[in-house]
Amino acid sequence: MKQPRIQADYLLETPGDPFRTAEVMAGEQSSGTFVRVPGETTQLRERAAAEVVEVDVLEEFVGTRSLPSAEPSPLAERLVRARVTISWPLATLGPSLPNLMATVAGNLFELRQVSGLRLLDIRLPDEFASVYTGPKFGVDGTRELAGVHGRPIIGTIIKPSVGFTAEETASLVANLCEARIDFIKDDELQADGPNCPFNDRVLAVMREINASADRTGKKAMYAFNLTGDVEEMKRRHDFLVRNGATCLMVSVNSVGLAGFIELAKFSELPIHAHRNGWGYLSRHPQLGWSFNAWHKIWRLAGADHMHVNGLGNKFSEPDDSVIESARACMTPMFKEKPCKVMPVFSSGQTVHQAPGTFAGLGSPDLIMTAGGGILAHPDGAAAGVTALREAWEATIKGIPLTEYGSSHPALSAALERPSA
Amino acid sequence: MKQPRIQADYLLETPGDPFRTAEVMAGEQSSGTFVRVPGETTQLRERAAAEVVEVDVLEEFVGTRSLPSAEPSPLAERLVRARVTISWPLATLGPSLPNLMATVAGNLFELRQVSGLRLLDIRLPDEFASVYTGPKFGVDGTRELAGVHGRPIIGTIIKPSVGFTAEETASLVANLCEARIDFIKDDELQADGPNCPFNDRVLAVMREINASADRTGKKAMYAFNLTGDVEEMKRRHDFLVRNGATCLMVSVNSVGLAGFIELAKFSELPIHAHRNGWGYLSRHPQLGWSFNAWHKIWRLAGADHMHVNGLGNKFSEPDDSVIESARACMTPMFKEKPCKVMPVFSSGQTVHQAPGTFAGLGSPDLIMTAGGGILAHPDGAAAGVTALREAWEATIKGIPLTEYGSSHPALSAALERPSA
Repeated sequence: MKQPRIQADYLLETPGDPFRTAEVMAGEQSSGTFVRVPGETTQLRERAAAEVVEVDVLEEFVGTRSLPSAEPSPLAERLVRARVTISWPLATLGPSLPNLMATVAGNLFELRQVSGLRLLDIRLPDEFASVYTGPKFGVDGTRELAGVHGRPIIGTIIKPSVGFTAEETASLVANLCEARIDFIKDDELQADGPNCPFNDRVLAVMREINASADRTGKKAMYAFNLTGDVEEMKRRHDFLVRNGATCLMVSVNSVGLAGFIELAKFSELPIHAHRNGWGYLSRHPQLGWSFNAWHKIWRLAGADHMHVNGLGNKFSEPDDSVIESARACMTPMFKEKPCKVMPVFSSGQTVHQAPGTFAGLGSPDLIMTAGGGILAHPDGAAAGVTALREAWEATIKGIPLTEYGSSHPALSAALERPSA
Repeated sequence: MKQPRIQADYLLETPGDPFRTAEVMAGEQSSGTFVRVPGETTQLRERAAAEVVEVDVLEEFVGTRSLPSAEPSPLAERLVRARVTISWPLATLGPSLPNLMATVAGNLFELRQVSGLRLLDIRLPDEFASVYTGPKFGVDGTRELAGVHGRPIIGTIIKPSVGFTAEETASLVANLCEARIDFIKDDELQADGPNCPFNDRVLAVMREINASADRTGKKAMYAFNLTGDVEEMKRRHDFLVRNGATCLMVSVNSVGLAGFIELAKFSELPIHAHRNGWGYLSRHPQLGWSFNAWHKIWRLAGADHMHVNGLGNKFSEPDDSVIESARACMTPMFKEKPCKVMPVFSSGQTVHQAPGTFAGLGSPDLIMTAGGGILAHPDGAAAGVTALREAWEATIKGIPLTEYGSSHPALSAALERPSA
């Protein structure tokens, strides 16, 4: 019987031979060291060594290395870029996500033989799906709790990001509930500081949300940012559950993988995964992580919602990359456990982005959060929510926004403001 | 009384005005959004806003942006590099390391206004030192447990990195104990896979280490790699303590900050912090993390030993950067809690690196681990240990290695092999 193996794809840039460099990568990340040592028998290599599955040369060119090395490199030299696939026997590490990280994304980015290395994708054997929970709520569970079907979940972010007291936050939330918003989230900078303690915020906000739900039958989902140490997150989670909250948020790169796995194990609420810090992992195109490889780890670990930036965002990411990430979120990971995670479009989002987002994703299964795009509406936050809901109504019906706006004043007013 | 603030220094590259860009960074990472929203009062800004403390323009030049943005950029344009210092009020986040990460290393790397951004340093108010443990053992505690004083702790890494069974590992360990080695570590690829389960390895290895200690009075310190989920790490830690182990190892980037903090809280053993993955965080000089900023977080969280690569390493890092990192490990973080962590020199280390390492660090308070450099000695692993110990004896006495080698055959034989 074939032993299960892990596969990873890389975008490699090297001034050397790409086939030889791929062998160095496989050696460094399994049984090799810089000299052959006693004990590294053929049998052991068969049991434990990583294998180069494929090296697909993409381009050869004369240029400057993307990443420096200890020795100065010439301004122009022959470089090769190749897509490299390496596989590892599952038996050396077992189905462990933290040890997977050390294996597929360990020392190899530092190799002097590579002048560029980016992890493009990972493929995991089914054993991983037996160990990790994956999203407990995903699209269906989130829609159920939010009471929103057939259209995107429309949300906002508390702005200013930081500075409001708990009561000031709750006062804004009351206003947003009045406007029948679906979803509200803390900013990732707001967790449990002395200016706005977590428990105070939960009590004040849930008082408004529960009161509004009793009155109107609609309960806004609020993602409370519980980012912190493991024990803090556990305590805050339990406090959320006791107070009727329906979502929690966490900064995944700040908490890290083992803490996140622990959170996902005990969480009884959907986990809204915020990817802040993503830039340092990904912004250079020849270094680090692609979204596709990176997000699979957090999906399997238990993320229910995953930030993917937004079209026309205020950051540096192009629109096609945003759509590619969002589509990745919906692509099944395992046959028996698809681990679909709900993409969250955020950053500079306004009514203007609805049609392009729907066209790109081909599905209304998304969360769109607009901060300034709702809160800075000339007629106030309630009109901001209405405008965004109207923009999505028009989009799903296939009606141009300006046309729909002519009979919908909130949308019309929002359309007069520029896109981010 | 002045409110405590957090400070962070960045290396910024921008095609725009560096002063304006620094303001955008401060706004994004505190009370700002892309439009001014109701509620962002002057009072709130005073309470919560980040402040630009200093912008020091380092160079202006014509060139290509280090990092791409959504819009294509010209091949040559005027760019500015500047050292930017930003400060945040502690009151918005409190002394929380995970929330510090989201604040100083959150969304700002993705800003379209920056074409390069690297976190150079962080300075934390004393409140952080009250919350986190820092290294429980550090240099003194490690020396006490290893029984090594006045010279570096000399160690090796089990090689081949993966593939040995527990008994094969123990057999190599027995040989190394025979050679009176100070320190042995698992490779970061070896944790708890089916080929070499953690508990089996601990039992087999500690049987040899304890037997050797009973016979010779010298007990080698073995850093067992317990990288995994939080509950796994707790279980493995307890198993180590029960079996007389004196050190544990963890891949910090794989486990992440919250999991690491939890580990540090319950650990009764020195924590050997392995930084694999460091390349994706740092290898581009205009992106990500400097070692100085990054390592402070893990020191305060409780790392006792910290990998800094090694002189003449097999990777891409230049020697001066290695020495700078090692010296950073020894620089006090707080007046009352210096949090000194023991630097670990590793990667392609041999007898050849002893003099340069000692000259660069100015102290023997370090761990040097040589894998191939010991295990591939022509006369076997025991001679490899002896040679490395002799190299350090010579170095500390100020005697050239070749001279010392003339009366020390193990060193002499090692000197004939090339440096990495």
